[in-house]
Amino acid sequence: MAKDKYEKVMDLAKRRGYLWSSFEIYGGIAGFVDYAPLGTMLKNNVITTWREHYIVNEEFYEIDSPTITPHEVLKASGHVDNFTDPIVECRECLESFRADHIIEENINIDTEGKSLKELEALIREHNISCPKCGGQLGEVKRYNLMFLTSIGPGGKRKGYMRPETAQGIFIQFRRLASFFRNKLPFGVAQIGKAYRNEISPRQGVIRLREFTQAEGEFFVHPKIKTHKKFKDVENEVLPLLPANRQMDESLNPDEKTINMKIKDALREGIIRHETIGYFLVITKRFLIDIGIDINKLRFRQHLPNEMAHYAIDCWDAEIYTDRFGWIECVGIADRTDYDLKAHMNHSGVDLRIFVEYEEPKEVETYDIELNYKVVGRIFKGDLKYIENKLKNMDIKEIEEMVNEINKNGKYILKMEYNGEIKEFEILKDHLKISKTIKKISGEKVLPHVIEPSYGIDRIIYCLLEHAYKEEEDRVYLNLNSKMAPIKVGVFPLVNKENMPEIALEIKNRLRSNGIIAQYDDSGAIGRRYMRMDEIGTPFCITVDGQTLKDETVTVRHRNSREQIRIKIDEVVEYIKNRI
Amino acid sequence: MAKDKYEKVMDLAKRRGYLWSSFEIYGGIAGFVDYAPLGTMLKNNVITTWREHYIVNEEFYEIDSPTITPHEVLKASGHVDNFTDPIVECRECLESFRADHIIEENINIDTEGKSLKELEALIREHNISCPKCGGQLGEVKRYNLMFLTSIGPGGKRKGYMRPETAQGIFIQFRRLASFFRNKLPFGVAQIGKAYRNEISPRQGVIRLREFTQAEGEFFVHPKIKTHKKFKDVENEVLPLLPANRQMDESLNPDEKTINMKIKDALREGIIRHETIGYFLVITKRFLIDIGIDINKLRFRQHLPNEMAHYAIDCWDAEIYTDRFGWIECVGIADRTDYDLKAHMNHSGVDLRIFVEYEEPKEVETYDIELNYKVVGRIFKGDLKYIENKLKNMDIKEIEEMVNEINKNGKYILKMEYNGEIKEFEILKDHLKISKTIKKISGEKVLPHVIEPSYGIDRIIYCLLEHAYKEEEDRVYLNLNSKMAPIKVGVFPLVNKENMPEIALEIKNRLRSNGIIAQYDDSGAIGRRYMRMDEIGTPFCITVDGQTLKDETVTVRHRNSREQIRIKIDEVVEYIKNRI
Repeated sequence: MAKDKYEKVMDLAKRRGYLWSSFEIYGGIAGFVDYAPLGTMLKNNVITTWREHYIVNEEFYEIDSPTITPHEVLKASGHVDNFTDPIVECRECLESFRADHIIEENINIDTEGKSLKELEALIREHNISCPKCGGQLGEVKRYNLMFLTSIGPGGKRKGYMRPETAQGIFIQFRRLASFFRNKLPFGVAQIGKAYRNEISPRQGVIRLREFTQAEGEFFVHPKIKTHKKFKDVENEVLPLLPANRQMDESLNPDEKTINMKIKDALREGIIRHETIGYFLVITKRFLIDIGIDINKLRFRQHLPNEMAHYAIDCWDAEIYTDRFGWIECVGIADRTDYDLKAHMNHSGVDLRIFVEYEEPKEVETYDIELNYKVVGRIFKGDLKYIENKLKNMDIKEIEEMVNEINKNGKYILKMEYNGEIKEFEILKDHLKISKTIKKISGEKVLPHVIEPSYGIDRIIYCLLEHAYKEEEDRVYLNLNSKMAPIKVGVFPLVNKENMPEIALEIKNRLRSNGIIAQYDDSGAIGRRYMRMDEIGTPFCITVDGQTLKDETVTVRHRNSREQIRIKIDEVVEYIKNRI
Repeated sequence: MAKDKYEKVMDLAKRRGYLWSSFEIYGGIAGFVDYAPLGTMLKNNVITTWREHYIVNEEFYEIDSPTITPHEVLKASGHVDNFTDPIVECRECLESFRADHIIEENINIDTEGKSLKELEALIREHNISCPKCGGQLGEVKRYNLMFLTSIGPGGKRKGYMRPETAQGIFIQFRRLASFFRNKLPFGVAQIGKAYRNEISPRQGVIRLREFTQAEGEFFVHPKIKTHKKFKDVENEVLPLLPANRQMDESLNPDEKTINMKIKDALREGIIRHETIGYFLVITKRFLIDIGIDINKLRFRQHLPNEMAHYAIDCWDAEIYTDRFGWIECVGIADRTDYDLKAHMNHSGVDLRIFVEYEEPKEVETYDIELNYKVVGRIFKGDLKYIENKLKNMDIKEIEEMVNEINKNGKYILKMEYNGEIKEFEILKDHLKISKTIKKISGEKVLPHVIEPSYGIDRIIYCLLEHAYKEEEDRVYLNLNSKMAPIKVGVFPLVNKENMPEIALEIKNRLRSNGIIAQYDDSGAIGRRYMRMDEIGTPFCITVDGQTLKDETVTVRHRNSREQIRIKIDEVVEYIKNRI
């Protein structure tokens, strides 16, 4: 059988040092991959370019938090309860499978959104058996996808390998807001490993148990989702596949995606707000910059039943691959205040930001005073903290408390001090409440967050596949000069007459200018060009007989195979101008 | 009590956004730290510089392998058995402690190299009790420092978070050797997270449970530990603290370190070989390059009883800190073939490299032929693999087999095929053995490895401490322009007369040239300078009244506070030339 493109790309990747199977000498484990020497350089180039877009241009600031995360954080974020897949075990061979995958492979049905019971019913109804041994399948259960570990001795403190880098940002929100002097909007990024303990990953580098994410979290005022640079990008055209067109059965599959200016998509209500639109454009620009084929890129809106538990709108940048079709590589989601609210509630720490009104407002509210005759002997040493808490309440909180007391006769005051969360029952006779009019200059708000989240490994695979070119007599990687790991190959035509020394000197000169050059003197010159073509090196320099006469060398361009002669002294400048 | 320097540096780091406690809103956990926005930039700058030294100049190639590592790998490497600390639990409050630390805190004794029994005896003998509750301490046990997890469902496959990045390199050695076309020496690097599940870390950022390493593994022929670039560095002077001088009680502590040219240290046998010496120099150059104070740097040789289980020689680059004294930040070790041998034995995969002799040699050996009459019916389908294996044996292996058969009448042939390891018993009558003389062109060798291993987090702390400067009226970070996270602060003197617009335009122009500039218009100009001083920003540009007249701005230099005027159009060039 002829190899498909995935196999060809992965063969090259393995043979030439882009991607290797992890733990290969111990038999390998599915869901892990090693970036080999050239793959690591490519990955670093992709990340550097991501930073150019987000850190340098968009002025996001990056943080770097631990991958090990204690239980409390991921309980609050919902991952302990919701980051799960349905699992089913074979009663005979004890192998585990993803219940939804097994069903979809057997019967033509969409399992998205089905409950465990519904999945199990489908298995029974259609008599689906173990794909490995044919045995009877057991109960469908919920399987948590986080790698579990414990921190410190004795297993006292549960922790997980983080399922996304984003949570590290959310739980530092208070410090971040203060870093940005409490001025919205601001963007924070994190690049690093994330983990997903897949049941039985079978799609090579497309479905990894350990992967690299680059996530941006753009915090905005909940009522202001415009973007100040939207005007600069509003005429950019994007290939959009909105939810309603996906569900529209009157359209052929290839008519569903439409090319639209982002401002038109906004006007027609296809995208929800400017900020989502802005990051769709930035995502397109980044992907094109690294070399993704624009004709193999589309932005697909999530259907209501596939949205993550934290999102109200989500678009995926999908990239087309030969074997797997369209795969999700970037998600751009409006996560609202889901995460900040969850962490605020679970930690008891106020994560709101005080936002000033343009002009102060007069509002009707209550004057609250403690009834010291009563409360002194009740709260004793805690009194001063309660006093302080009441003083710092904003209008909304005061209103909520008064309503609660009027309704139920009491209010539970939750507060944190000395690192502990305490609760106090406030009764009606603890307070003196009177109506009043106040001038207020602003209010506390809990920001919303718009998240562009990039799966770096998938992007790199797609990049390799899109760069993979076959010609009659050669294969080459059409990587652009910014992405190519080795920028220049340097060869002596033959290994004599001082040619190797001159070539080595040129290689060293390039290296000392920060340009990754590789010296190669083994095999025929044609084979050396071929090796460089296969790894995507854009330029090859050859020292030959002519060099000894006039100090010139040939420079060969990878794609055109064109060769020109330049002076040795011009080599560094020539290459610098082209990468 | 006056704050010590650690406290001052950490206060600034927290307040200004270099380092934050991890999981702070959930009470925090010792042994974890977050790199805040400026800290992450600093860390990225340090890593970029490390890559300049190792990847660009030394031509190491980097790989990036998973942090989750299956049991087999770390069993083979010795970490499952040896990567441990002695632990003791209090029988009353159940708190755990490091047994050696508790002893050293109570009695003045060096516990290095003591057995569990000896440690327990010391606790009993000196009546050492729980430092927390005074309760009786239990048995001293061995505690493994790796974070344990399991891969896939059902806990069937044990894994650990890697204790060092190095193992990821060793287990890919076969592929790496082929990437370097089997030519020694070659260098491979890995930068990434490593983990150590400390019992009760109490030294802030100095002792982390999750940290970043940058490790280089330089593979050499076991008999050739010279380095081809040693000549280029031989006159470099290093502050050395050799093992023998540490143990020499006739020397005062401050006389023990000596400044020596590396070539003299080699000649006097203080360093073992050129390659160790070479990487000591590279390490010094890297540390100076990022801004470590040369007067607070020394290279200390490990004493025989403190060497890791895999090393025959090890030097630590130690950096002086105010609170903790000299701390180990880099280790440069000769790990021999310890790791490759271990993985070869455990995996059954041959990790040796074939090295050609300069001239072919004639050696006495044996001709081996299978006795097909006998072996055919015994080995059946396996025969062709056995045939192949025997054909590929080198002289040493043949000799070993023949000796074994002559001595014990049989030889166990271990081999890997189809990903499985199989064993076959070869008896005397399976073979026809005859003496012969062969011309051989080379032999298989198992390389040794010299490892420079950098603890990035400690280096960053030291860098901050060395950069921390107090003057009468200000505190500033004396970071060099390459390390400073923000290169330029840009201010309007007042927020009117178009000054903010001009300042923003200058900030944007710098950013679009890849220079991290930060705009600030809040508070008095003096306060803005002070904030930039505190975060180590080398240049501040101010737009003032004069700007409106002649399009010039002031540039203020952080250390000297000197201000000069330049044209707006020259700003980018001016800054570019100075960073």
